[in-house]
Amino acid sequence: MSDKHLSTQFDSELSAISTRVLEMGGLAESQVAQAIYALVNFSGDTATQVLKQEELVNQMEVEIDRDLSTIIARRQPTARDLRLLIAISKTIGNLERVGDEAARIGRTVQRLINSGVSSRLRVPANDVSFEASLATASLRKALDAFARLDAVKALEVIKDDNQIDQEFDGLMRKLITYMMEDPRTISASIDPVFVAKAIERIGDHAKNLAEQIIYIVKGTDVRHHSLENLESIVR
Amino acid sequence: MSDKHLSTQFDSELSAISTRVLEMGGLAESQVAQAIYALVNFSGDTATQVLKQEELVNQMEVEIDRDLSTIIARRQPTARDLRLLIAISKTIGNLERVGDEAARIGRTVQRLINSGVSSRLRVPANDVSFEASLATASLRKALDAFARLDAVKALEVIKDDNQIDQEFDGLMRKLITYMMEDPRTISASIDPVFVAKAIERIGDHAKNLAEQIIYIVKGTDVRHHSLENLESIVR
Repeated sequence: MSDKHLSTQFDSELSAISTRVLEMGGLAESQVAQAIYALVNFSGDTATQVLKQEELVNQMEVEIDRDLSTIIARRQPTARDLRLLIAISKTIGNLERVGDEAARIGRTVQRLINSGVSSRLRVPANDVSFEASLATASLRKALDAFARLDAVKALEVIKDDNQIDQEFDGLMRKLITYMMEDPRTISASIDPVFVAKAIERIGDHAKNLAEQIIYIVKGTDVRHHSLENLESIVR
Repeated sequence: MSDKHLSTQFDSELSAISTRVLEMGGLAESQVAQAIYALVNFSGDTATQVLKQEELVNQMEVEIDRDLSTIIARRQPTARDLRLLIAISKTIGNLERVGDEAARIGRTVQRLINSGVSSRLRVPANDVSFEASLATASLRKALDAFARLDAVKALEVIKDDNQIDQEFDGLMRKLITYMMEDPRTISASIDPVFVAKAIERIGDHAKNLAEQIIYIVKGTDVRHHSLENLESIVR
């Protein structure tokens, strides 16, 4: 009975942490959306908002990590539960990095506005928005997969990453063309280059998140595995 | 006595893992140095070498993580030891990311060579090498600090990161100037831009490593703290 009691306490602590992780993920996701909004609409206010949210995301990472350590030390979890707790720690590390990328975009927008570059800048807004929508969709899918511990959905996220990479390549070609057409825009075009890169990285982080989920569900560390290998592990 | 016995076993397991972490760190460090060598000398062979080493670094991460989980499950460590083990897990995550950046540079070199771009490319080799030497020095210092659990040295690494960021900014200005002088080089200059960024990220990873070391030694999570705050925690 005492074991049962402990296990129930553990479950409720775990469920509280999972809720916090999803909350942190939701914050990071909205941070990315706002960063892109700030870029496309040249909104300094929204960029400032993104940077404020980053502090919140950072703080949540530190708090959740502290809670995880407390649970491990107090509950002495089984190997399987431990795997879950460590995977959660890596998951929030990924979410924090998503927040970092959003903040990079936010700081870029602030710098662009401060340097009065707006009129000369040729951000290919539709393309950046499209690449970003793919990345945020991936992130949302990964958070869904985490909420349901759904390895099949996690595998989809890993597959989706190729499309984001292709979008990035296309966007890069477009930016290079703009720069060659009008070399005076080169200086201003470097920022969009890094924004496109930041979005591609957000896709990478979603993929890393998905790998952690498969590890939680299947117990196999699938980082650095081939896609075919992944298929056979997940199905 | 039984406790003592267990603790001695734990210590020797811990020391074995620390050795592996330093080995992994040394590999990542040499991978970065080789990636820069490959870039500056346009050596396809060295680039291939870098990509082979990446597999090794990835494999080490997976193995050390597995060993960490085994130790935690078997030894049920105290809160302090647990903190150390979780920090080690984050540390190797950072080292793996260093390897990733090196591999990015290696793949860039391969692509440049395959596209026959060498003669047109204007990599500012001295500048890239200098930025890279700062980043690898930071990484080495962080690994040293890890080996000795030296928080003061770890703090130096965090301070050094500013200089790497400044180098990156200077390099970026130089690349933009080259592109404007000769717009035909734009396409070929984008790769050096990303290389410079990859090196800057390596500096970031060294900084993250240093933050983990301060956490291990001082028990305070110093991610996202100000430098002044850090000073007072470490001294």
